[in-house]
Amino acid sequence: MKFLDKLDSAQKRNQSQLCVGLDIDLSKLPKKFLDSEDPIFSFNQYLIENTSDLVCAFKPNIAFYEAYGIYGLQALIKTIEFINEECQVPVILDAKRGDVGHTAQAYAKALFEVYKADATTVNPYLGHDSLEPFLNYRDKGIFVLCLTSNVGFRDFQTSGKAEPLYMSVARHVKEWNHFGNCGLVVGATSAEELKDIQKIVGDMPILIPGVGAQGGDLKRSVKYGGRRAILNASRSIIYARDPRAEAEKLRSEISAAGNAQ
Amino acid sequence: MKFLDKLDSAQKRNQSQLCVGLDIDLSKLPKKFLDSEDPIFSFNQYLIENTSDLVCAFKPNIAFYEAYGIYGLQALIKTIEFINEECQVPVILDAKRGDVGHTAQAYAKALFEVYKADATTVNPYLGHDSLEPFLNYRDKGIFVLCLTSNVGFRDFQTSGKAEPLYMSVARHVKEWNHFGNCGLVVGATSAEELKDIQKIVGDMPILIPGVGAQGGDLKRSVKYGGRRAILNASRSIIYARDPRAEAEKLRSEISAAGNAQ
Repeated sequence: MKFLDKLDSAQKRNQSQLCVGLDIDLSKLPKKFLDSEDPIFSFNQYLIENTSDLVCAFKPNIAFYEAYGIYGLQALIKTIEFINEECQVPVILDAKRGDVGHTAQAYAKALFEVYKADATTVNPYLGHDSLEPFLNYRDKGIFVLCLTSNVGFRDFQTSGKAEPLYMSVARHVKEWNHFGNCGLVVGATSAEELKDIQKIVGDMPILIPGVGAQGGDLKRSVKYGGRRAILNASRSIIYARDPRAEAEKLRSEISAAGNAQ
Repeated sequence: MKFLDKLDSAQKRNQSQLCVGLDIDLSKLPKKFLDSEDPIFSFNQYLIENTSDLVCAFKPNIAFYEAYGIYGLQALIKTIEFINEECQVPVILDAKRGDVGHTAQAYAKALFEVYKADATTVNPYLGHDSLEPFLNYRDKGIFVLCLTSNVGFRDFQTSGKAEPLYMSVARHVKEWNHFGNCGLVVGATSAEELKDIQKIVGDMPILIPGVGAQGGDLKRSVKYGGRRAILNASRSIIYARDPRAEAEKLRSEISAAGNAQ
């Protein structure tokens, strides 16, 4: 199933624009999972079973799995398999890859065929031919980093001659969206800029991290993110005492922000 | 041992500024390796044993291993272990990572502690805090993408207000080099620009891909790359009929270009 259809259908079915980030940190796992045979997978399974009717996507960031070596990556594969089997919720594998053409081809193969993600994130620094191998997977979703939610985003993303670099990225991605499979990443920490970006890309899905632990602006992000905005929270949900309750609360806040428009 | 010391010593010992890129592609492997129990590792072992006295570094690109899933990554770990045990040649694990702070921390852990690389490549798009976890590994080498060797580099890397983005990256990296562990990546396809970049960063090591299959300018890259230039070739050497002869030839060409100055 096409990523975009899967996303639209999950947003509608679960009445949700919430994405839960599955960012594993063994040092934060409740003891009962640490004692299990496969701590990472058991914890993810618990999170997925408790939130899959509340979200429009799951977003594991591959870095947190790779940090645990082969075991971590095996648990990632098992987690994505579980999501694909158990619920119709798309998986955005956050990997932020970017490399020259034939290397990008290998990365795209890894993310979509080995890990079997529905979508991924990519870095635009190397330009069009570094994204092309991803874009050629027509049924997958390709979220290009535009304006990120970290403090260092101003070092380079806001530079530019005629317009800031992030606006140039947004314009290029709109142009490169021949197969309708592109998206953008724009941090909730830049809600004003999101407004301008969304005007350029229209209905393109925008992945918006930074509403949880990073303290971004939820209300304005929902207001300006367009109809396919995906609001991601990771740590604030998955390490809460009751992840389901936390996810329900955030989904409601997002809905309320949407209805207030 | 510190990456920079290991690099300096290998450059001196082997009289070489050549780096061999271990970019695995099973479809190009000679049959005798494909028939072995562990094709990727056997082929790498053959390449390493035949070129380790001719190079200043080995550079596996992780994408080509990840594309073969868990098996590929296991072979990568085994390959780096083998290099570390058998020869004093540093390993630059080409990964081009870039993510927000705590995620970058997980990537740095994976690259330096799981895969045990001496150095890696990173993407500057997210700015300083995305690189900091890497920079804090004081003994490792951190090569920041500056001006890449692919055709799409002009999409964003040459944009900029007061100066092109790649010049701004070079200036920032020079400023961020508190522990003397930074380097840059500049494609041999941009030898003129390399001249300006090298003037900014002085003795910082510059990893220069694109001299082999990508057809960059070898002579001017050596001339302008500074004393710690690292010239990388991958496919043109490793898939040659005689990789050792090819590596020897390229090492000589690099030396000749250096002596002609």
